[in-house]
Amino acid sequence: MRVLVANPNSTSAITEACVGLARLAASTGTDVAGWTNDAAPPVVDSVYADYLAGAALVRGLVALRATAGGPDAVVLAGFGNYGTAAVKEALDVPVVSMAEAAMALATLLCHRFAIITTHPRMVPYTEDLVRLAGFDARCAGVRAVTLPPVGGLAPVAEAVAAALAAEIARAETDLGVDLVILGGARLSPYAAPLRGQVRLPVLEPVACAVQIAEALIRLDLRQSKTGRFARPPALRV
Amino acid sequence: MRVLVANPNSTSAITEACVGLARLAASTGTDVAGWTNDAAPPVVDSVYADYLAGAALVRGLVALRATAGGPDAVVLAGFGNYGTAAVKEALDVPVVSMAEAAMALATLLCHRFAIITTHPRMVPYTEDLVRLAGFDARCAGVRAVTLPPVGGLAPVAEAVAAALAAEIARAETDLGVDLVILGGARLSPYAAPLRGQVRLPVLEPVACAVQIAEALIRLDLRQSKTGRFARPPALRV
Amino acid sequence: MRVLVANPNSTSAITEACVGLARLAASTGTDVAGWTNDAAPPVVDSVYADYLAGAALVRGLVALRATAGGPDAVVLAGFGNYGTAAVKEALDVPVVSMAEAAMALATLLCHRFAIITTHPRMVPYTEDLVRLAGFDARCAGVRAVTLPPVGGLAPVAEAVAAALAAEIARAETDLGVDLVILGGARLSPYAAPLRGQVRLPVLEPVACAVQIAEALIRLDLRQSKTGRFARPPALRV
Amino acid sequence: MRVLVANPNSTSAITEACVGLARLAASTGTDVAGWTNDAAPPVVDSVYADYLAGAALVRGLVALRATAGGPDAVVLAGFGNYGTAAVKEALDVPVVSMAEAAMALATLLCHRFAIITTHPRMVPYTEDLVRLAGFDARCAGVRAVTLPPVGGLAPVAEAVAAALAAEIARAETDLGVDLVILGGARLSPYAAPLRGQVRLPVLEPVACAVQIAEALIRLDLRQSKTGRFARPPALRV
Amino acid sequence: MRVLVANPNSTSAITEACVGLARLAASTGTDVAGWTNDAAPPVVDSVYADYLAGAALVRGLVALRATAGGPDAVVLAGFGNYGTAAVKEALDVPVVSMAEAAMALATLLCHRFAIITTHPRMVPYTEDLVRLAGFDARCAGVRAVTLPPVGGLAPVAEAVAAALAAEIARAETDLGVDLVILGGARLSPYAAPLRGQVRLPVLEPVACAVQIAEALIRLDLRQSKTGRFARPPALRV
Amino acid sequence: MRVLVANPNSTSAITEACVGLARLAASTGTDVAGWTNDAAPPVVDSVYADYLAGAALVRGLVALRATAGGPDAVVLAGFGNYGTAAVKEALDVPVVSMAEAAMALATLLCHRFAIITTHPRMVPYTEDLVRLAGFDARCAGVRAVTLPPVGGLAPVAEAVAAALAAEIARAETDLGVDLVILGGARLSPYAAPLRGQVRLPVLEPVACAVQIAEALIRLDLRQSKTGRFARPPALRV
Repeated sequence: MRVLVANPNSTSAITEACVGLARLAASTGTDVAGWTNDAAPPVVDSVYADYLAGAALVRGLVALRATAGGPDAVVLAGFGNYGTAAVKEALDVPVVSMAEAAMALATLLCHRFAIITTHPRMVPYTEDLVRLAGFDARCAGVRAVTLPPVGGLAPVAEAVAAALAAEIARAETDLGVDLVILGGARLSPYAAPLRGQVRLPVLEPVACAVQIAEALIRLDLRQSKTGRFARPPALRV
Repeated sequence: MRVLVANPNSTSAITEACVGLARLAASTGTDVAGWTNDAAPPVVDSVYADYLAGAALVRGLVALRATAGGPDAVVLAGFGNYGTAAVKEALDVPVVSMAEAAMALATLLCHRFAIITTHPRMVPYTEDLVRLAGFDARCAGVRAVTLPPVGGLAPVAEAVAAALAAEIARAETDLGVDLVILGGARLSPYAAPLRGQVRLPVLEPVACAVQIAEALIRLDLRQSKTGRFARPPALRV
Repeated sequence: MRVLVANPNSTSAITEACVGLARLAASTGTDVAGWTNDAAPPVVDSVYADYLAGAALVRGLVALRATAGGPDAVVLAGFGNYGTAAVKEALDVPVVSMAEAAMALATLLCHRFAIITTHPRMVPYTEDLVRLAGFDARCAGVRAVTLPPVGGLAPVAEAVAAALAAEIARAETDLGVDLVILGGARLSPYAAPLRGQVRLPVLEPVACAVQIAEALIRLDLRQSKTGRFARPPALRV
Repeated sequence: MRVLVANPNSTSAITEACVGLARLAASTGTDVAGWTNDAAPPVVDSVYADYLAGAALVRGLVALRATAGGPDAVVLAGFGNYGTAAVKEALDVPVVSMAEAAMALATLLCHRFAIITTHPRMVPYTEDLVRLAGFDARCAGVRAVTLPPVGGLAPVAEAVAAALAAEIARAETDLGVDLVILGGARLSPYAAPLRGQVRLPVLEPVACAVQIAEALIRLDLRQSKTGRFARPPALRV
Repeated sequence: MRVLVANPNSTSAITEACVGLARLAASTGTDVAGWTNDAAPPVVDSVYADYLAGAALVRGLVALRATAGGPDAVVLAGFGNYGTAAVKEALDVPVVSMAEAAMALATLLCHRFAIITTHPRMVPYTEDLVRLAGFDARCAGVRAVTLPPVGGLAPVAEAVAAALAAEIARAETDLGVDLVILGGARLSPYAAPLRGQVRLPVLEPVACAVQIAEALIRLDLRQSKTGRFARPPALRV
Repeated sequence: MRVLVANPNSTSAITEACVGLARLAASTGTDVAGWTNDAAPPVVDSVYADYLAGAALVRGLVALRATAGGPDAVVLAGFGNYGTAAVKEALDVPVVSMAEAAMALATLLCHRFAIITTHPRMVPYTEDLVRLAGFDARCAGVRAVTLPPVGGLAPVAEAVAAALAAEIARAETDLGVDLVILGGARLSPYAAPLRGQVRLPVLEPVACAVQIAEALIRLDLRQSKTGRFARPPALRV
């Protein structure tokens, strides 16, 4: 099985981190490749960046599709929208958004979950994502830490982990959740160290998405092509 | 007052039709200009096209912003998403989506409304739009006629009007609605002739949006810049 | 255009204040007249008062309808229910509730809004209003200051403004809203001074309603007469 | 126990019919008295009539309160709003709306219920009632027969019963309900004959309300006076 | 009238307490009998215990049904699920869950209610109960005190009452509720003493259920047998 | 990896069919074992049967837990509730309900799905399941075929497949869904032949659950033990 981990932004360090997490999560025999969305902004930190990234993402993946030896499934390795539905329309292989994969698995594991995102301004953006995907009955709230801008000084790992741990504790107390999802690719590397520090299970979405992608491949399933995700008229040849 | 009617697709005939409707709806003294999204697909008939159009739209309008004599408000003259929130983030003047304007006015005028869209495949797309904007409690359903592709033979006006009238009658009977919204810029020219043929009020969104844009200018209001629509980090200079 | 600003209570000072705000908000050429609901209680501070006011309101406006030179639209200048739907049924011209107008415009301008009402006991009343109008997906909560009773000592303007500013700040922090609506005609005069003091946009509903009323007149729209707002049997002659 | 059956409209024949049903439903020893809202319209067939009826109703019941030997509970014998909350505010004894009583009991008896109302124009009115009371999760829909106007020719009993039976059968098939509520005092007399004709249980709201009123008296319960139903300022002496 | 108060757990002291409360609440002439679910766990403190209790409950009540002189109605005297719907299917007499009865009555008496349950771990369990019964629009939240395990040291009455009073006060402040329901049979005995200590009305569910059971008997109503509560195939003879 | 496929009913032919489907769906190296709930009814065709099955299921699986060489995950191979949450509480390994697994995967693959269940009387049961799991925003409806009782004549395979195909077509037309889930273990064997006959993707829940179980094992995830699924007090040793 070949799984392509597509990073919707142009920061290759994030691609590499996600590919690393994906390989750890993948089954033996699964081939994980990375793809960076070079024509996108370095980070999706607004709806503005989401649209620029999404248009480049779907264009890039359509171009890739034409080349030989395409992947068996595509994982979208960002916790956002950036045209997920557009990619599902455009491709014939299963497309798995890491946000959707994490929320889908969370429904099996908890009463209610919270999402911790990367910046307070991403809270409404993430709330919309939850609502659009129809998980509002299970998501008790979206909270945020504050990561520094991409491209500036790297955040201090201990400080981020401590901020996440504090926010997770607050989510448990304030929202009554029994599971949290890390809602941003930049937060994914903190999942492993956090697990020793917090009571609640912490879902790392890249790993969730890789496993869901494998499951879909094994089950020979993909997005339905009879309705919302039918091939766009412009891509019918 | 200067209102810019921005067509999210690249079909200038649609821009012209919308500008015509906008001028009819505008108050005396309002200057209506049109803008065609030349870098976009000719029609937004999928989420794929939505993202390509949206990225080009926000890029184009940001570029325009830098030029002298910008508009006092921007009307987005397509019945869709195509980055409405991105444009609201990027611009400092009020941004009015014609879909949101029509739904907002409809809440004042009826018990429940239906939206008639341009093609069955746009039904889920439009349902998501309604849900994201939070109008699901008032929108009883989305229905569709089937317009031919842009660029092929022009649709026969009488046939489209008859199909719309039939669909509106069905929406009244099946869904119990007392108002309909024409959910696509290509449908807007049919609003006037339909009014003689159907019992229900028919909202034409371009006109709604122009009047809402004027209202916001007069009230000195625009999208809140303290939360979801704050200027994107990449556009802060 | 002639817009009648109908105050659902009998306190003429409130009518005057609302007419003043309406004239400031109206377009050049719009003629704003005021009407006081003399047969109503001095303030709508309960559902009890709402029903007494509403019955008098609809009776008074029906009587007025019969006189020559009626208005082109009616603005209901109270933040409540008091028979809004009854007036929409009874009249043939557009009827605009200032509460509905403010909420409709708010949907275009923010992620989520809060309403600040005039007294804690009006919170459930206002929550019902929001729910009935179907804005619960966008209204994150209703909060209250405590105005003194009408007819007693006038409230101290500075103290009211300070209480409003504090409540708005709390709404931003607790509820994550990015816009507030002043939910009571007695609060409307505080909108202008508040704008210098608070970060969030503050909607003043009288102004919103006047602009919406003008828009409906220009668009030749009014409440649908095919369903919920059909003329009541008792008023068919 | 003394239970007052208050008819919100001025048609004494309806009061008498409701009192008759109430006496059949009451426990031995319960004293049922009737009260006609003489200052109201003869029927509540619009929101307009609802407000006129409601204002007269609350005024009348407040006046009655002052007289000696008041009732231990008041049943509002109309399937509507007409100021139910206003009466709950104004009175200190339990106030039971027959609509709310029927819906509350229905939640215990079925998966989902339908309401059959007296005229198609009352469908949106009744939908609002259901939504305001928070029963939308259990009410699968509101349907209507068409009763002739009050004061004209009396409806033919067999024809009404047949129309109700047909509508109930359609509700079962179309909406999947397993219980129906007759949503109008004028329909209540048809409940008994219908029970032999239809598969589904048929709730008659007057009887439900009388039993709920008795239950509240025995339990020494009434509407909470600490929030929404606190005594209105104007009625505090 | 014979009402059977069925305790879903095996602790006879709880049965006795519930029967005592039921007799206080019953009308003169109502015969209240108690039944202890001897094959169940001593307390329903998890979904695990709920299922063990529920299976034993429905088996026990089906066996009872076959004996002469069955009850006219059954009250399920636990604040939970434990197969309420299974019992409604299996029996032909009205079955009243004390949780459903209390929530149904609460809808008539308040704007929004809170439920106080017996242990923090029962909060999600109770939230599911509320959601399944469709009362989420009226229930503002579920809170908990912490009772000691059944079978250990008896809780100190004053301490429990004080904890309940504190939690009720918090629910009023935090959730804006104007009524509370005691959500557990073990809490029911505290209702009476609490009424002198707290502002909000306190519903005691056993009493509510007994009165509702009587009402259904008098009205000749029971759960609908045409849909969800039809006799199970295995019990058709 | 060892996955235990637990059939909540006592019909071993269904266990065998499910184990067969599970083995087809499992990855190489996954060891699939079957378990029949011998103390349960032969089929879960009511809430009554659900509770009897569920109590036996959780008791049986708790007993099994104590034996050496327990499974790494448990798949509950029935499309229902039957104490899923109780089993999640009682066990420390991941517990995957096939209903929850199918709905979770469906959210990634479609706009809205329908569920086809085994008998009209299971429609309300299944609607409750959907609502409790919080998938109501994505599930457009539950429909049914009518399987004959277990233990009687075996259904004719062609007739069942034809009935399913017809119901799926109706669901597409009436509900606008773009995917269906077969909602009953007895329907699972029809998934493969149906795929050649219907336009819509058809989810077979046993296969979905096996793949989700494997995913959770690889990700070292299981139900959260900090809230709703904490070990029941009675099982703490």
